[in-house]
Amino acid sequence: MTAAVTKTPAVVLLSGGMDSAVTLAVAQANGFAPVALSFSYRQRHELEIRSAVAVAEKAGVARHEIVGIDLAAFGGSALTDPGIAVPKHDRAQDIGGGIPATYVPARNTIFLSYALALAEVTGSRVIFIGVNAQDRGGYPDCRPEYLDAFGRMAALATAGSPVRLSAPLSAMTKAHIVLYGMGLGVDFSLTRSCYEAGEQPCGRCDACLLRAAAFAEAGIADPAVTP
Amino acid sequence: MTAAVTKTPAVVLLSGGMDSAVTLAVAQANGFAPVALSFSYRQRHELEIRSAVAVAEKAGVARHEIVGIDLAAFGGSALTDPGIAVPKHDRAQDIGGGIPATYVPARNTIFLSYALALAEVTGSRVIFIGVNAQDRGGYPDCRPEYLDAFGRMAALATAGSPVRLSAPLSAMTKAHIVLYGMGLGVDFSLTRSCYEAGEQPCGRCDACLLRAAAFAEAGIADPAVTP
Repeated sequence: MTAAVTKTPAVVLLSGGMDSAVTLAVAQANGFAPVALSFSYRQRHELEIRSAVAVAEKAGVARHEIVGIDLAAFGGSALTDPGIAVPKHDRAQDIGGGIPATYVPARNTIFLSYALALAEVTGSRVIFIGVNAQDRGGYPDCRPEYLDAFGRMAALATAGSPVRLSAPLSAMTKAHIVLYGMGLGVDFSLTRSCYEAGEQPCGRCDACLLRAAAFAEAGIADPAVTP
Repeated sequence: MTAAVTKTPAVVLLSGGMDSAVTLAVAQANGFAPVALSFSYRQRHELEIRSAVAVAEKAGVARHEIVGIDLAAFGGSALTDPGIAVPKHDRAQDIGGGIPATYVPARNTIFLSYALALAEVTGSRVIFIGVNAQDRGGYPDCRPEYLDAFGRMAALATAGSPVRLSAPLSAMTKAHIVLYGMGLGVDFSLTRSCYEAGEQPCGRCDACLLRAAAFAEAGIADPAVTP
C-alpha cells in the first residue's frame, strides 16, 4: 500500500501568453501543485484572461484565482489607457530599444505582491513567474536584479515560511521557450500574446512580432495562428 | 518678483489612522506636495476611509487616490474575513506577542506596490509610510529590515528615477507620535484607529487600546473620543 503524496503548492502567475503557459508546465514538471493567478487589470487585451483560463483547465490546475485590479486608474501605459496607441512595426527587428509605451508602471511589482499574499494563505513557498531573456531590455521589472531584490524583500514580508521567486525561463530566448514548451506538452494553440483587443491577433504589435519570430526561429508553426 | 516654487510630489499612504495623519504632516513640513493614497480593501473598518478623506482635505492635499482592491478574496485575516473575530482585551498590556489575527497577508507589500506605481506616474521619488516602533513586533511587513528590502527592490522596479521609502515614525512610540503630531498641527479628531465596523470606536481592539495608551502616556486627551 502506498501513501498518497500531497504535492507542494506553488503560485504561478498566468497571463494567457506563451511564457507563463510554459512556466506553469515547468512548475508541474517539478512536482508542484500550481495555484494559478491571473489579473483583470482593465488591460486592452482582456481576452488574454480567457486564454489563461483555458491553459489552466487543460493543465488540470485545481485553483485559479482571477483578481480584478484597476491599474488604469493611474494611467501611464498603452495597455491601460485607450488614449495611448500600442506601437506597431512591420518586423520584429524594427522594435526599438528603451522603455516601450506598453510598459505598465510597477505592474510586475503589484502582480508579485498579490502572488505573495496568495502564497502566504495557500502555504506556498515558491512563486513562479515567466519572464525571459528578451524581456530584460525593455521592462525594468523583468531584469534579474529586480527579481532578486523582490525575492529578498518577499523573504522578509510574510508571517509564514519565507517565499522565494522562481523564473525558470529567465535565461531563455522566446524561441527556446517554444521548444522547451513543446517538450513539456504545452498546447500553444490555447495561448494568446497580442496587446490589442481584437479576437484575432493584430500581427504587428511587439508581442505578436516577437511571438512570430520565436516560432519561426524554432522552426515550428504557431498553432494559434490560422494559416 | 519671486518665482513660483513648484513643490516636489511625494506619495503618502493614508489609512485614516493617527500614524499616517502625522506622516502626511511630516511630508508637508519637509516641503513635499503629497499625493495621498488610500485603499478600500473590503476591510471591516471601511469607515477609516472617511477619516482619510477628512485628513487629506484638512491638510489641503491636491490629489487623493482611493483604490479599490479585494484583499478579502484570499482570506486569512480578521480584518477582511467576517468569520475571524478581532481580538479584544481589557488593557493594552494584555495584548500578546506573535502575529495577531488582524495581520493581512502581504498587505503592506501590496499597498507599497500601488504606491510605487503612483509614484512613477506622478514623478514622485519618495513614498511615505507611517509604520512605527510598536508595529514591529507583530507585523512582519512593518519591520525596518522589510522596509529596507522593499526600498532596494523599488529602486530597481521603475522606468523613471529611483523611488525610495521614507518611514519618519519608524523609531517612535505611539505616545511620541501623538506629541510630534500635536507639534505639527495634526487634527487627531479626524482620525480613526478602531478595527471594528461601528461608528464609535469599540475601545477594546488592539488599535483602540494602543491609541488610548498613547494619548494617556502623552498626557493629552484624545480629541476623537467623546468624554
